[in-house]
Amino acid sequence: MIASTPWPPVRTLAAGVAAGELDPVELTERALRRAAETADLNAVVHLDADGARRAAEQARSGPLAGVPLLVKEIIAVEGLPFRCGSRVFADRVAGEDAEIVRRARAAGAVIIGLSHSHEFAYGCTGASNVAGPCHNPHDASRITGGSSGGSAAAVAAGVVPFALGTDTAGSVRIPAALCGVVGALPERGTLPVRGVFPLSTSLDRVGLLATTVADARYAVAALAGVDLPDESGSAPRIGVLADPELLDCAPEVAEAYRASLDRFADAGAWVVEVSRPNWKLLAETAFDLQGAEAAALHAALDARAEDYQPDVSERLRVAAEVPGWRYVRARDRVAELSAELGHLLSTVDAVILPTSPILAPPLDATEAEVSTGRYPVRDLLLRNNRPVNVTGYPALSVPIPAGSGLPVGLQVIATGNRMAFDVAEWITAL
Amino acid sequence: MIASTPWPPVRTLAAGVAAGELDPVELTERALRRAAETADLNAVVHLDADGARRAAEQARSGPLAGVPLLVKEIIAVEGLPFRCGSRVFADRVAGEDAEIVRRARAAGAVIIGLSHSHEFAYGCTGASNVAGPCHNPHDASRITGGSSGGSAAAVAAGVVPFALGTDTAGSVRIPAALCGVVGALPERGTLPVRGVFPLSTSLDRVGLLATTVADARYAVAALAGVDLPDESGSAPRIGVLADPELLDCAPEVAEAYRASLDRFADAGAWVVEVSRPNWKLLAETAFDLQGAEAAALHAALDARAEDYQPDVSERLRVAAEVPGWRYVRARDRVAELSAELGHLLSTVDAVILPTSPILAPPLDATEAEVSTGRYPVRDLLLRNNRPVNVTGYPALSVPIPAGSGLPVGLQVIATGNRMAFDVAEWITAL
Repeated sequence: MIASTPWPPVRTLAAGVAAGELDPVELTERALRRAAETADLNAVVHLDADGARRAAEQARSGPLAGVPLLVKEIIAVEGLPFRCGSRVFADRVAGEDAEIVRRARAAGAVIIGLSHSHEFAYGCTGASNVAGPCHNPHDASRITGGSSGGSAAAVAAGVVPFALGTDTAGSVRIPAALCGVVGALPERGTLPVRGVFPLSTSLDRVGLLATTVADARYAVAALAGVDLPDESGSAPRIGVLADPELLDCAPEVAEAYRASLDRFADAGAWVVEVSRPNWKLLAETAFDLQGAEAAALHAALDARAEDYQPDVSERLRVAAEVPGWRYVRARDRVAELSAELGHLLSTVDAVILPTSPILAPPLDATEAEVSTGRYPVRDLLLRNNRPVNVTGYPALSVPIPAGSGLPVGLQVIATGNRMAFDVAEWITAL
Repeated sequence: MIASTPWPPVRTLAAGVAAGELDPVELTERALRRAAETADLNAVVHLDADGARRAAEQARSGPLAGVPLLVKEIIAVEGLPFRCGSRVFADRVAGEDAEIVRRARAAGAVIIGLSHSHEFAYGCTGASNVAGPCHNPHDASRITGGSSGGSAAAVAAGVVPFALGTDTAGSVRIPAALCGVVGALPERGTLPVRGVFPLSTSLDRVGLLATTVADARYAVAALAGVDLPDESGSAPRIGVLADPELLDCAPEVAEAYRASLDRFADAGAWVVEVSRPNWKLLAETAFDLQGAEAAALHAALDARAEDYQPDVSERLRVAAEVPGWRYVRARDRVAELSAELGHLLSTVDAVILPTSPILAPPLDATEAEVSTGRYPVRDLLLRNNRPVNVTGYPALSVPIPAGSGLPVGLQVIATGNRMAFDVAEWITAL
C-alpha cells in the first residue's frame, strides 16, 4: 500500500506550475487516481473530483500553485460536507471556507477532498467515524492514530504531498508518528483556527502532515504568510527529558529512540539531559481545559447521545463531569506552566522525546504494552503530546529509523517555529 | 443610633484640611469617637486608633486630605488584620496595601480601621462573620445586608463620610439600600481590585458607600484619578423594566418605588418602559462564573471546612458542583449578554429598579415576603443586583423616600459612570 512514486517537493511543484512547466490538471488527476487506488484506507472521506478539476484549471500562481491538498473533515470547505466524522452532522454542508482553506486556495492549492477525522476530533486513534475507521497504510489492520488520521494516511500513501490537520492534544503528531510522516504543530497563532469545528478553544491549533520537514516548513510559511528560512546546519543542542515515565515505551520505540540519540551525538549534537518539566500538571491542566470546553460545545449542540460514536459519547460524559473550579484552576495556571516549559526549552535548541511510546496498535486493541506494563492505548498515545498544547510552543513529529517495519516518530519541541523546523530538519537530514 | 451630626461633604472636608482651616486630627478623633459610640453595630471590626492619629498628623494635602475612611476587611491594609471575616484567616495580617488603599492614602485619606464583611464576601446579609453579625443602624435587630455591611452601617451611623466596599453580586448596593446610604458600583476597571481578596475574578469590583451621590462621585473620581464633573440638571430619560418578576416586592418597597416614579414624571423626567433584558440568563451566568471561581479559590486555600461559617461552607459546597462546561458556556456568553444590556441602556439615560425588593429583614430571618409569596432572603437580595456584575456597567443604589421607617433603595444602571452619577444625582436632588 505504501509504495508509490514520491511527490516532488511542494516548492518544486508550485514553482513548476507557476512557470507553466507542470500541468496542475495532471497533478490533480494523479492525486485523484492515487486516492482511488488507496480507497480502502478510508483516509479520504469525501473526494471532490469535479471541484478539484475545476480548481486545477484555474491554478496558475501562488506559493502552492496547483498543489493537490486534502483538508481534514472538521475544517470547513464551502459547499462540501462538514460532517466532522459524525452522524450528528450527517447532512451538514459548510457554508463558507475556513480561514486556513481560504488561504490555501489563495495560495493556489487545489483541494481534492476531505480527510478522515476521529469523530469531532475527539479521539486519538482514528478508529471512530460514522464512515468507519481509518487504516494505516503500513498495515491496514492497524490504526493510523488520530484525530488527523486521514491526512497522515493519505500523505503516507502518496495521495497528496501534504494535508491539513488539527491538533488539540496530539492529533497531528500522533498519526504522523504511526503513519511515518512529518506532523507539524506550529506555534499557537501561526495558522488560523476560524472555521475549524472546535474541540477545545484553549488548545486547538491547525497543523499539517507532509512527507518531509522541508515541505512542512514551506507549506506552513505559505499558509501563514511568513518567512521560515531554513537555517539548519550546525549540530543543535538537544535536550532529552530525564523522566523515566516519558521514556516508558514499547521495545521497538525505545530501541529506535536510543539509536537516534547515538546518531545525534555521533553527528556532533550536544545531547544533554534537561530537568523534567511539570508534565503531569500540564497533562492534568490540558484534560480539564479540554473536557470542560468540549462538553460545553457539545452540550450546546443538543445532539442526541446515540448519534455519537460510543467512545466519543463516553468521553463527553466524562468531560461533562470536570468541575468548574478545576477548569478555573487549570486556566489560571496556564501562564505559569508555559513559562516553566519555556524556561526549560530555552536552555537548549529543542527538547525531544518519542511522539508515541508504541507502534501503531491493531484496530481493535484497547491496551498496549510498554516496558512497565499494559495501559490503555489512548493514554499512551496522548501521554507525550497533550502537555504541549497547554503552552503555545511548536512541536513536530518526524519519522526516525526503526527496525520494526512500522514507523516510529520523534517529537521535537522548541520555543519558536524556526528553531523547531531547523532541529527537525537537521534530524531528518542525518 | 442613626442620629448624629452629618459629616460635611467630602470635598469640603478635604479642601478645609488642605487650606489649614480644618484639623485632620480633630476629624479623626470625631470618627474614632463615633465608632466607639456605635460599637454595638459591629460595623467596625478593627479600629486602628494609633495608626489613624499618626496618619492624621501627616494629612495635609490631596483630594481626600484628612478624610477619615473605613476599609472593608477583605481589602488589604498593610499591617492590619486581613481576616476577611473568617476564622480561616484568624491570624492573617496584610503584608502590603491593596492598590485602592495605596491610592486612598496618596489622596490624603486617613484610614481609621476595617469594616465588617460577610465572611470572604460570600454572602449578602452581613450576618456571617467570625466576629458575629453586623447590625442595621436603623434597627439593630435587622441585617445590614452585605457583604459590605460594615461600610454601609458605618456610613449610615455617621462614623465616616465614606467607606470602601466591594461588589461581586450586589455587595455594595444591597447594604446601601438596607442601611439608607448611597452605594456606588463604578464601571468595571474604574477602581483597582489588586490586593482585594477575590471572590470571583470575573465579577469582583471595588465600590464605595457614602451619604450623598456628590460624595460618592467625588470619592470615586479622587480614587480613580479621573474627572467625573456633575452634569446633572435637565430631567433624564429613565427606563423602567417591564418585568413583573423584578418588581415583585414587599408592599413598602413597591409603594416607595411607585411614588418615586410619580415624582420623576412630575419633575419632567421621561419615564418609559424598556424591553426586558435577559435578566434570568444574566443571573444564571453570574452564578456559574462566581461559583466556579469562588470554589477554585477556596479549594486552593486548603482550609478546613469547619473553619468557615456554616452558610459560606454550604455555599462553597454548592459552588464546587458547578460543572466546567457550564462555566465555559457562561464565560462565552458574557460579551453577547453585555452587548444586549448595553443596547437596552443606550435607549435611555439610565434604567432603574428597586435595589432590594424587601426592607432589611430581622437577623434570623431566612425567608421574606414579597407580593407573590415567601422566598429565601438571599435570593431576594441578589435578584435585582447580580446580573449587572456580568456586564461592566456601573450601578448606584440611592435611598428614596419611604414611609416605612426603614430605608428603601433605588438602583440606577447606566452605560457609563458619568451618566450613572448624573441620573442618581438628579433623583436624589428632587
